[in-house]
Amino acid sequence: MPVGTQGTVKAVSPRELHELNAQVILGNTYHLFVRPGLEVIRRLGGLHRFMGWDGPILTDSGGFQVFSLSKLRRITEEGVHFQNHLDGAACFIGPETSMEIQQVLGSDIVMAFDECPPHPCTHEAAAKSLELTLRWERRSLDWWAARNDAGERPLLFGIVQGSSHEDLRVRSAQELVAMGWDGYAVGGVSVGEPEPEMMKAVEYAVPHLPEDRPRYAMGLGTPPQMVELVARGIDMFDCVLPTRVARNGTAFTAAGTLNLKNACFTLDEGPIEAGCDCYACANFSRAYLRHLVKAEEILGLRLISLHNLHFYIGLMAKVREVIEQGCFDEFRREFVGGYKPHKDV
Amino acid sequence: MPVGTQGTVKAVSPRELHELNAQVILGNTYHLFVRPGLEVIRRLGGLHRFMGWDGPILTDSGGFQVFSLSKLRRITEEGVHFQNHLDGAACFIGPETSMEIQQVLGSDIVMAFDECPPHPCTHEAAAKSLELTLRWERRSLDWWAARNDAGERPLLFGIVQGSSHEDLRVRSAQELVAMGWDGYAVGGVSVGEPEPEMMKAVEYAVPHLPEDRPRYAMGLGTPPQMVELVARGIDMFDCVLPTRVARNGTAFTAAGTLNLKNACFTLDEGPIEAGCDCYACANFSRAYLRHLVKAEEILGLRLISLHNLHFYIGLMAKVREVIEQGCFDEFRREFVGGYKPHKDV
Repeated sequence: MPVGTQGTVKAVSPRELHELNAQVILGNTYHLFVRPGLEVIRRLGGLHRFMGWDGPILTDSGGFQVFSLSKLRRITEEGVHFQNHLDGAACFIGPETSMEIQQVLGSDIVMAFDECPPHPCTHEAAAKSLELTLRWERRSLDWWAARNDAGERPLLFGIVQGSSHEDLRVRSAQELVAMGWDGYAVGGVSVGEPEPEMMKAVEYAVPHLPEDRPRYAMGLGTPPQMVELVARGIDMFDCVLPTRVARNGTAFTAAGTLNLKNACFTLDEGPIEAGCDCYACANFSRAYLRHLVKAEEILGLRLISLHNLHFYIGLMAKVREVIEQGCFDEFRREFVGGYKPHKDV
Repeated sequence: MPVGTQGTVKAVSPRELHELNAQVILGNTYHLFVRPGLEVIRRLGGLHRFMGWDGPILTDSGGFQVFSLSKLRRITEEGVHFQNHLDGAACFIGPETSMEIQQVLGSDIVMAFDECPPHPCTHEAAAKSLELTLRWERRSLDWWAARNDAGERPLLFGIVQGSSHEDLRVRSAQELVAMGWDGYAVGGVSVGEPEPEMMKAVEYAVPHLPEDRPRYAMGLGTPPQMVELVARGIDMFDCVLPTRVARNGTAFTAAGTLNLKNACFTLDEGPIEAGCDCYACANFSRAYLRHLVKAEEILGLRLISLHNLHFYIGLMAKVREVIEQGCFDEFRREFVGGYKPHKDV
């Protein structure tokens, strides 16, 4: 899922998202709650209409951003009091608020409200945080159950927490499955822990999540990480990398990343990636893209964003294909082995 | 002509330029000479191929930018020695250099190399500058005449100078016509002079320029200025305003400019301009565009740039239509009378 934090996938238009075959995009509840605010999106007919995107939208619960972006947080049983990162205004989000916001946004896939503990986190602190998260997730589900329009409700996804502790990840997954969600996410990953620890957190949880429901690793990852996570049973991803690094001139290819600022591309007539049929590769040379990036021209980051999203979405399409053909293991070995990341990414 | 200073119309792709029915775009010789440099564009097959634009390109001569952007200039009979604005490297551009650069760029419409005197400028200084410009323009023409591929050469446009002095503007125009150019530009306007003085500079020159050749006012203007200049015999314009003000959240409409940052648009469901069929107006509300501009999202300035270029190109299409229908005067009266610019533009 391309990430559309503030009601737009950065630098990309809805028409381009359709052309990229984006199936779902992600909207950030916290950011949209702070700006433009719920009243604006409500009055403008929901997030789909507001941003001109008629495909599915998954919204996060705001939990992660409340903990990573806001200031002066106070956590109570009820929810989180905080000052927003824009103007410092006092705000509150709890499970019910989060569900209400996501309903107003018109989300197609709603995430449970959770606490995302920092890394590292002791077993004691992680256990206490998990119990609160489980109560908040129960309340998230109950909010929807209490409504009489159950037939029209969005899909509801629970989030596995538990930091790096196996017993907590297992307990979290089992409790969520007992509650019965439409899909299951692994959260509290990509919060600064080393990659092996992130992989372990997923490995602890996944065997306890039903195979017939989507399993989603939140906020991940690099191309080889995604392939490795698919190998561990993950079905869905969201990640800002394709668009974020594009704004710094970095492009993804199957052989690894390219920093298009590098002088070696000054006279390079080739496309970012040979054989790629994205708009950028079909029409422009590395030399031109390097020029645009060096000259800080917006078209440069636009074109690299398009290529990178095309690469990410194409990689997942390829993964689905090799799974169907029964040759995923071979693909995984070749892809992960052949991928040489530039040191920046 | 949308302006593509550094090898891209800012924030707009070639595909979008075609969809906007842009007939010609402008490239800036000075900027491209400084970055990426002539060798890069030569090796990459010229500016059209480099930037992926297969429509016509007009290039300026670099004269205006040498005088407005570079440092430590020394003007000799030969040309201009200067330090470029990027890294201070010592550079030289004279008439022959300018023609050679424009040839390497692969320009379809080449501008003569001229000196652009500052505003205000005494009669004595303007007269001296004009004589130098006339010699440089002669040398610009001679450079092309000395080549044996006259049948394939681009169109060559001379530039009327003379500052605010009627006799100099007239002499400039008459001398140029005697040389015989494919088209004629009025330069040295929009250099800080009040609007009436700019209009007069055009009025002095135009009666002495042949009606059967394109007449081009360089670097202009606002929508009513363009209509007023058409009334004075001008056929062609280039202007950065549509894209420049878009990056600040300002949109053009037939009723004047809108600053989309304004709070009054917070809940405005309407498009920038009712009835407009550009991509921005067909799909997005003023409220959404305001949100994007406030959140400093690139999609905001992209969409407003598209709308503004659509507005400018559409205004000129309308002007051609009313001229053909014999009702230009009525259109001019209504349009110029009904246009209320926001104070920022």
